[in-house]
Amino acid sequence: MRTRFRQSLDELKEKLLIMAGFSEQAIQRSIEAYRTRDESLVELVRRTESAVNRLEREIDAAALDLLATEQPMAVDLRFILSVIRINADLERVGDLAVNIALRAREMNSFADINLPVDIPRMGTLAAAMVRKSLDAFIDGDAALAESVLLLDAEVDQINRAAFRSLSELIKRDPETTPQALNAIMIARNLERVGDHATNIAEDVIFWVRGRDVRHNVSAAA
Amino acid sequence: MRTRFRQSLDELKEKLLIMAGFSEQAIQRSIEAYRTRDESLVELVRRTESAVNRLEREIDAAALDLLATEQPMAVDLRFILSVIRINADLERVGDLAVNIALRAREMNSFADINLPVDIPRMGTLAAAMVRKSLDAFIDGDAALAESVLLLDAEVDQINRAAFRSLSELIKRDPETTPQALNAIMIARNLERVGDHATNIAEDVIFWVRGRDVRHNVSAAA
Repeated sequence: MRTRFRQSLDELKEKLLIMAGFSEQAIQRSIEAYRTRDESLVELVRRTESAVNRLEREIDAAALDLLATEQPMAVDLRFILSVIRINADLERVGDLAVNIALRAREMNSFADINLPVDIPRMGTLAAAMVRKSLDAFIDGDAALAESVLLLDAEVDQINRAAFRSLSELIKRDPETTPQALNAIMIARNLERVGDHATNIAEDVIFWVRGRDVRHNVSAAA
Repeated sequence: MRTRFRQSLDELKEKLLIMAGFSEQAIQRSIEAYRTRDESLVELVRRTESAVNRLEREIDAAALDLLATEQPMAVDLRFILSVIRINADLERVGDLAVNIALRAREMNSFADINLPVDIPRMGTLAAAMVRKSLDAFIDGDAALAESVLLLDAEVDQINRAAFRSLSELIKRDPETTPQALNAIMIARNLERVGDHATNIAEDVIFWVRGRDVRHNVSAAA
């Protein structure tokens, strides 16, 4: 009986990892769509999102089922609750990837100008945050989870700098408005990906240490 | 024993309602800060957020405690899981209210110009969505929860129209860039408040009907 329960927990973890892989890939592809202007990638990101949504429901159902039938205690209970929360965060990361891909496609209607923001770098950081937070989850590594909280500050800072420099560009050269606005929105979406990875990292710390670290780090505006 | 459990569930509901009241009020005050340019409201919204964060932790701890000690089944289990999810959504609504208030304050450094977006109306709609979704939760009213999903489409539509008209304004009159960009960000934050209210409404439907309605309505870009 208990062995079956442990196996179910492993399967739940496995599914969540697949979900995380999809979400991370969706972010990478959406940034690739921005970088290369390849519209076929936009379609791919949208298809991934459907898969992510299906998986989210499956994981939630499995977690609920375990809670109802096994009445887990202490660390197992915290693990399952973390899965439920992380699952919701990963699903939103998938949504954000779609937003980014659609913005990237919209930019293809306008001239390919040089913008004062390094979206690919920001995307790499955000995707790394998602991966690291999940690695921390797999290994129950609270120290790794804490490193994600530091990366979040960096992504926030790039986002704020991008907002400033892109606003100035618009003021200086209003013809760039559509491109600059889309870039502002993409940077904002990446900043939110970072926030979700931060949520996941905080859940890992909660799961491992059993203490709540939320609101100890300052929120991004 | 069971009576004590029922009482604990009622207390949990009570706390969540207080949390919802704070979040709704924070949104209203942030919009008031935008409308009246009264900076004292910005401070008030920030103070409310601290209270919201404290309450979030209290509610989570109480819900976790109930799960661990009572091992609730079926409808009670779904209720407690809904509380955990709704709690997280309300906390983010509080964060968004702070974002809006800070943007409103930033706008005070610039001329008070006429902008082609009705932020107060959007704010009223978004706050109503939060209230209705919580009313639906109190009464276990799935039909009321469904009406929230319809309001969300309206808020999304206003947000898209605002983005278009404000971008055009910037292009036409680049001097308006700071005000227009801040208005775009406030509209975007209100659209996200609507998304959180939608999440809550979906959780109510899940709790009452035991079926998952997520991803049946189209996501906002």
